[in-house]
Amino acid sequence: MLTYDEALARILAQVTPLPAAETRLEHALGLVLSETIVSPIDLPPFANSSMDGFAVRAAEVQSPSTTLPIAGDIPAGALSIPALRPGTTLRIMTGAPMPEGADAVIPVEETQVQPGGSVTFLTAAALGDCVRPAGEDVIAGSVVLTAGTRLRPAAIGLCAAVGRSTVRVSPRPRVAIISTGDELVPPGQALKQGQIYNSNLYSLAAQVEEAGGIVTHRLLAFDTPESLREVFDQCAGADLLLTSGGVSVGDFDYVKAVFAERGTVDFWRVAIRPGKPLAFGHWGDTVFFGLPGNPVSSLVTFELFVRPALRRLLGHSDTSRPLISAHLSEEAHHNPGRQSFLRAVAVQNAGEYTVRPLPRQGSGMLGAAAEANALLIVPADLSVLLAGTTADVLLLD
Amino acid sequence: MLTYDEALARILAQVTPLPAAETRLEHALGLVLSETIVSPIDLPPFANSSMDGFAVRAAEVQSPSTTLPIAGDIPAGALSIPALRPGTTLRIMTGAPMPEGADAVIPVEETQVQPGGSVTFLTAAALGDCVRPAGEDVIAGSVVLTAGTRLRPAAIGLCAAVGRSTVRVSPRPRVAIISTGDELVPPGQALKQGQIYNSNLYSLAAQVEEAGGIVTHRLLAFDTPESLREVFDQCAGADLLLTSGGVSVGDFDYVKAVFAERGTVDFWRVAIRPGKPLAFGHWGDTVFFGLPGNPVSSLVTFELFVRPALRRLLGHSDTSRPLISAHLSEEAHHNPGRQSFLRAVAVQNAGEYTVRPLPRQGSGMLGAAAEANALLIVPADLSVLLAGTTADVLLLD
Repeated sequence: MLTYDEALARILAQVTPLPAAETRLEHALGLVLSETIVSPIDLPPFANSSMDGFAVRAAEVQSPSTTLPIAGDIPAGALSIPALRPGTTLRIMTGAPMPEGADAVIPVEETQVQPGGSVTFLTAAALGDCVRPAGEDVIAGSVVLTAGTRLRPAAIGLCAAVGRSTVRVSPRPRVAIISTGDELVPPGQALKQGQIYNSNLYSLAAQVEEAGGIVTHRLLAFDTPESLREVFDQCAGADLLLTSGGVSVGDFDYVKAVFAERGTVDFWRVAIRPGKPLAFGHWGDTVFFGLPGNPVSSLVTFELFVRPALRRLLGHSDTSRPLISAHLSEEAHHNPGRQSFLRAVAVQNAGEYTVRPLPRQGSGMLGAAAEANALLIVPADLSVLLAGTTADVLLLD
Repeated sequence: MLTYDEALARILAQVTPLPAAETRLEHALGLVLSETIVSPIDLPPFANSSMDGFAVRAAEVQSPSTTLPIAGDIPAGALSIPALRPGTTLRIMTGAPMPEGADAVIPVEETQVQPGGSVTFLTAAALGDCVRPAGEDVIAGSVVLTAGTRLRPAAIGLCAAVGRSTVRVSPRPRVAIISTGDELVPPGQALKQGQIYNSNLYSLAAQVEEAGGIVTHRLLAFDTPESLREVFDQCAGADLLLTSGGVSVGDFDYVKAVFAERGTVDFWRVAIRPGKPLAFGHWGDTVFFGLPGNPVSSLVTFELFVRPALRRLLGHSDTSRPLISAHLSEEAHHNPGRQSFLRAVAVQNAGEYTVRPLPRQGSGMLGAAAEANALLIVPADLSVLLAGTTADVLLLD
């Protein structure tokens, strides 16, 4: 049986970023650039004033209390700019182009406007005061963002500033989710004997969205080959297909067989707890994961395997949650034989992490799992990790 | 003039979470519960098998190689469950209800089915083996999530598992953004002399979405009172209204005046760099921020003031970015007089943070700001922070 590391490596070796798509900038937040952005323009595009004030020739304002006649106004966005005639000043607004002949701006706070249309400067001017030269931030032709950059808000602003209304990014993966089981009932309805609420469809969809995917299908299949075939075929063409339940050894576990009619399976089991039954394969261009049906197994195997694949589809270079080393605040037990991922609470204090395994670790214990912000990794060959020792921990939050 | 701390405290004292709204569970990811969720049912709702296998009376399988006739099947979701007759076994699927009379399950891997409809067990059974008792995870009537909890995927799954298809949460704030300036042109068009691309509308919208808000209006106003009045009035009823530009002292800065016709302003200036001109007020139930127009000032003041307000509207108790202490890898300079928030890169290594101020700190330096993942705080009364000393840093990512 594959270990966690082996299974994850096999998955990542077979999943590549989705083909780049030209995307409107307002929809690109958080996505990863597939292209390098070169600015076609200087930023700022022209020398401009960084303050509201008066444009001058610095050589004419070499001492405080110089007074000059105001020859006009330059608002930001003015389409024609008068030149600055010697012996005069022009009122100028923040961001407005510097007039020809001017080489400094004196901020309005340092001036006193006189009756009759002149202004007295309370300070001397030096060459370049309060002027932002053209290209001060970015020179035309230079790279402003490289391929592989995740677009945070400042990068989105920078794309706009250099004139881009669209960018090439790996698009959000379209994800289809199939929950399987005759016992499943949508929340909001009444339960009959032997039924439970279909929680995995909700938690998996939330995990997909949190990781940056778009949930295009939320389907429920009964435990019959006919029902599974019908819902599988509705999902054809998805970038990622997830099923929950129906992948273990029971007679009603038809997911394997029905998927194998359509795609190829790479592996069906991983030596981990929770989540031993876990399928990975391909159906044409669709990446397939068959997750176990226990709620906690579904949550954990998504974190361990599906989220990295989703982030790879999105073009992220860092596909995994942060792996840190933490001190155990109490003992952690498990049945040796498979590597365990115990639901845990990790706390950082003065740069050091402490981790506490939660008391109820059953694969149906969703109430306990909802408290967890971390997965504590227990090696397959140990049965206990002692309090005070350190262990590897995946941070979920 | 207010300091950063004073201004932030005044803002948070005047902003309260949006009234709770009943929200479909599939739209509640990341939102904050306004109610405490009590489970109306046991979880699991009935005793069930944790494995595919055979339901038995443990007392009848006290030694390996016991053989019993298979009296029937219990699939998950079966609506009527036969009782287990003494001296027989029932095939049972994971999640299926335990039949009356059975008190243990032997996993299929530990069995050998015989010709003629009986099964030999390769192991003895103990009371409760592979049985999940009703209420093992959650007992009916108990609290599963408290008001104030942010709904992560596991919590979304837990809400579904206890039957909730809707939850009461503070909804996503509806945010209107107005960019002001005659010089602004949408990206994708050609620039004329004196024009620049309207980047703030894009970076602010991205910041709003990253913080959990919904951008309902993206508007551009010219530097005239008429244009501002028209776009302001289109934004009536938003939860949050942001303007960019037009709040300093220039003759064309009409935002103050036009806003004051509609709402009340609490303050117009904060003693920080970048971002001294910064307005905060109310227009009916709409929270208003007038942000400065320089791209970097707009980005930074959003982080310092608008994001905490947005998170307060969303009901989060932690409204600010993480504030950490970091060692400077090189000197940081600024003009003393106002507290500065320098764009910087922070790196964590073995629990310790190092921070490097970026070289180009002008308020128009968007190219440099896009590299930053942190804001380095320089106190108002210092002009330099020396390399190797520690400073407060806000982490942006």
